[in-house]
Amino acid sequence: MDITKAVKEILRKNQRVISSIYFVACGGSLVDMYVADYFIKAESAKTFTGLYTANEFCHVPPKALGEQSVVVLCSHGGNTKETVEAGRLAKQRGAQTVGLTYNKDAELLNVSDYSFLYDWGADSEVRNNPMAISLDLTVSLIAETENYEHYNEFRQGMDIIDTVVNNAVKQVQKRTKNFADKYQNEEMFYILGSGPSFGHAYGFSICSLMEMQWLDSTAVHSGEFFHGPLENTDQNRNYLLLLSEGRTRPLDERVKSFLQQHAKNVEYVDAKELGLDLIPSEVIEFFNPILFYSVLSEYRYALSKVREHDLEARRYMGKVSY
Amino acid sequence: MDITKAVKEILRKNQRVISSIYFVACGGSLVDMYVADYFIKAESAKTFTGLYTANEFCHVPPKALGEQSVVVLCSHGGNTKETVEAGRLAKQRGAQTVGLTYNKDAELLNVSDYSFLYDWGADSEVRNNPMAISLDLTVSLIAETENYEHYNEFRQGMDIIDTVVNNAVKQVQKRTKNFADKYQNEEMFYILGSGPSFGHAYGFSICSLMEMQWLDSTAVHSGEFFHGPLENTDQNRNYLLLLSEGRTRPLDERVKSFLQQHAKNVEYVDAKELGLDLIPSEVIEFFNPILFYSVLSEYRYALSKVREHDLEARRYMGKVSY
Repeated sequence: MDITKAVKEILRKNQRVISSIYFVACGGSLVDMYVADYFIKAESAKTFTGLYTANEFCHVPPKALGEQSVVVLCSHGGNTKETVEAGRLAKQRGAQTVGLTYNKDAELLNVSDYSFLYDWGADSEVRNNPMAISLDLTVSLIAETENYEHYNEFRQGMDIIDTVVNNAVKQVQKRTKNFADKYQNEEMFYILGSGPSFGHAYGFSICSLMEMQWLDSTAVHSGEFFHGPLENTDQNRNYLLLLSEGRTRPLDERVKSFLQQHAKNVEYVDAKELGLDLIPSEVIEFFNPILFYSVLSEYRYALSKVREHDLEARRYMGKVSY
Repeated sequence: MDITKAVKEILRKNQRVISSIYFVACGGSLVDMYVADYFIKAESAKTFTGLYTANEFCHVPPKALGEQSVVVLCSHGGNTKETVEAGRLAKQRGAQTVGLTYNKDAELLNVSDYSFLYDWGADSEVRNNPMAISLDLTVSLIAETENYEHYNEFRQGMDIIDTVVNNAVKQVQKRTKNFADKYQNEEMFYILGSGPSFGHAYGFSICSLMEMQWLDSTAVHSGEFFHGPLENTDQNRNYLLLLSEGRTRPLDERVKSFLQQHAKNVEYVDAKELGLDLIPSEVIEFFNPILFYSVLSEYRYALSKVREHDLEARRYMGKVSY
């Protein structure tokens, strides 16, 4: 479906009043919507938001869920049981539902008022991935209901993000191989980030490392690092720090300064150095995670190759019942 | 300060309209307010909420922050720079501020319209700890503005939570020692939980294990476990699962069932078995974290003893600048 058309229809149905937008999914799909939730908190004065792992949404739906709500659901395969159930529940409460999936036969489509079949794979444009779609939809809705002042700059960002990402992916080819060589025998990684990018710190931890490489990992918010996690910093532990562009950059730089003094195994992934500053400064922070997802995918691919652990290898998912 | 008096005064000042309540702190103090944020999402139809690590709140304050907002700030020592700064910012925006601290000379008190000096230590009642105070204040505000239907049951719960916790702490004395003996040489722990208790899964991970024991750890939401983290489950990894009472219990039980089949090093900390069901069922879930905090403190104390690693030992906090 087309975003402009979906926005128009959503607004027509609820007489241009949206009281809340919820983002509901599991694992990597939830990560993809982190930035849309962040955008609303940062830029909307009138709209509730909430980011929910689907099974918790099903068991404890927000009290504010109702006819003026929009619920955005994402499931890559489209048949994640909890996410489909969340869509059913949202519709029962009168909310309008938006479903994002890669699978044209997905059950999710049966509970979605608006459906987006997104592109996937190495050749697809990042502006057509579920992260960009859910963010674009959200920004477009808020722009219509609250007159968001940087909507034009946001559109400029969307127009060039594919170029930025393609350049960055080329730029990191050598360093991802060095990273993989250096850390191939390590078992535990700290992944740090802030603001719109914390979702991908978490995502790299649970999806790329735990799920796809069977490694131990933890995600720590750059702001929280100084209130607990810093105490076990030493020369043997391994860190990957996402340095975002935008308002939360000072949080990441504070971590960088600390790690430069007290750790030696640190990989810095810096949106500024990777060319994100082609995006207008008023909206740049919302594009960090789109860049980081693609770049981190190169890191995990390189690691999988040198470790000879296929990214698709699973021992429980699709193999045992749970 | 007295909660009833604070509620009355807050409502008088903003003509009984609260559009948002934000909870802002760092590390362990942030963890303590997780349940109040959860309560609003679950039980309020009219109030925005947000749980912010203080430095992110300072750099990216919510757009909805304003005169109809209440900002609850917590800092144990009372001088956490980011938290004090967040209070200053909130006041500049016209919000009413509530400060919780243990320190009667705290800077936080200078930016707090309402101040709570809480009790601390082994002899203090849990109903006077910052978690119970911030929850009670929140529930009382929502009860006044939205007619929360289980307020009487909540009060009953508050009246007996100290008895429940005292019994549970006695009940776990032997098992915490067994836990400490069994896991004393382990270096990495997965901490799992859901709903109102996820804050304490995270808190045990970053404060009790990383900060106070210099161990590796990660917190995983029970609902998210099946969408990534489960894949590295094996007979050698270590898990501590919080089983909550209330609506999210099925999420925790699903994890239990999986771990019983695929792991062997698992500690189950079950609110039901620890006697939380003395609390009225309509409100029981909001009391899980109050119980878990006290019980998990026994676990960490036992671990610190057998590992001969003092809970107060620090190598960076208060020793180096950052």
